[in-house]
Amino acid sequence: MFGNMRNIKLILEYDGTNYHGWQTQARSGNASIQETLELALHVLTHEKVITYSSGRTDAGVHAWGHVANFKTSNTIPGAAWAPALNNLLPPDIRVRESEEVAHDFHARYSALAKTYKYLILRRREPSALCRNFAWHINVPINVSNMRNGLKFLIGRHDFSAFQGSGCTATSPVRTILSASVKESGDFVELQIEADAFLQYMVRIITGTLAEVGVGRFSPDDVKRILTSRDRKEAGKTAPPHGLYLVSVRYPY
Amino acid sequence: MFGNMRNIKLILEYDGTNYHGWQTQARSGNASIQETLELALHVLTHEKVITYSSGRTDAGVHAWGHVANFKTSNTIPGAAWAPALNNLLPPDIRVRESEEVAHDFHARYSALAKTYKYLILRRREPSALCRNFAWHINVPINVSNMRNGLKFLIGRHDFSAFQGSGCTATSPVRTILSASVKESGDFVELQIEADAFLQYMVRIITGTLAEVGVGRFSPDDVKRILTSRDRKEAGKTAPPHGLYLVSVRYPY
Repeated sequence: MFGNMRNIKLILEYDGTNYHGWQTQARSGNASIQETLELALHVLTHEKVITYSSGRTDAGVHAWGHVANFKTSNTIPGAAWAPALNNLLPPDIRVRESEEVAHDFHARYSALAKTYKYLILRRREPSALCRNFAWHINVPINVSNMRNGLKFLIGRHDFSAFQGSGCTATSPVRTILSASVKESGDFVELQIEADAFLQYMVRIITGTLAEVGVGRFSPDDVKRILTSRDRKEAGKTAPPHGLYLVSVRYPY
Repeated sequence: MFGNMRNIKLILEYDGTNYHGWQTQARSGNASIQETLELALHVLTHEKVITYSSGRTDAGVHAWGHVANFKTSNTIPGAAWAPALNNLLPPDIRVRESEEVAHDFHARYSALAKTYKYLILRRREPSALCRNFAWHINVPINVSNMRNGLKFLIGRHDFSAFQGSGCTATSPVRTILSASVKESGDFVELQIEADAFLQYMVRIITGTLAEVGVGRFSPDDVKRILTSRDRKEAGKTAPPHGLYLVSVRYPY
């Protein structure tokens, strides 16, 4: 029977403001993205559909391109899942693209790399339009120093110092393939591509680089923190609402 | 007594999604930006403060830089009004800057020009993150044609064809000082600076240029529509949620 099941890949965009992150959690008051999506899939297919995700996102974190897949015996054509699901999903979750993929595709295990973006708004007063979409820092930030600190993190490292205490990963070693800090008006945009991420890794890196930006750490301190492999040496975990899962890379 | 009154200028940013536009309207269910601001000013000063605005915005329209001023006998220093008001305002309205200005400054009558931006998202499926912040058009758009159509509108013209039927302006003549259409990823961004605007003017221009973009009008049709001075010749009024009041220019 499993041989007749089709494998459907979805690329999802969501505003994470009102969700308890990707993963369904029994204890939470807010719905998760996953359970909202699975409910829409259940309504559409009358099947009990389980979705596999490229990874988890924390409560309040957003996505431009979160990837999920699921098996179904439903005959809806690959590209038609996106508009069909968008008719059922709340407006803060949207399927950007859908397609039928090979049976062995798995949103998480097939992933080569993921890219996250973190948005900081640096100005005196907070923003009305970006209140849920950027971390407001109301003191001057030296972006050049942030850039120099970030350089130490590129490559294959033990990122224990940038790992949330609840992280269940078996190894703290990850490879940052590329990373940049850009300025655009009042915004500072940190972008990181890695083979995989530890829990809170981007948010702890951002919190640490923010300390570099405001002058509490030097750029060289980032190297020291990385080498220490001690979470207590790094900066605070930046808030979730500035973080975006941008895209997930696959071999095909 | 009026001679002792100070004149305070505010630059406001707001997410217009949950407001009935700038102006207080007795019949509306939603609050207006103006009444929300005046309530905060009343709480702060214990005075009945009246605000003067650079102009009205429609329900759902956003602002990066709406300008207002008011007279007060309160002694709060010019720059301190912004943080003081931000403590009282809801998070979707923010005062970016405040300063004390000359007695003859009036947010509307002193204005030399205003700049509006209109954001279109062109892709197949709607956006979760931009659902309240861009007009979604799900068919291809020829931006070069939009640009060629827009050129006919630059300069001093009778904009009757691009004027809402409820507009109370005494003259339909306005001067568009500059206008551009830019592409950035899936976004098309229309920006227009004019000495002043008629009701719905940017939204009707955008709706008309969208018809050019999708091929229902030719660029030359924009010239014909302008010359007709007939609202019925122009395209539909684009929805409010893609529109932003960016800034207001003053002589000083």
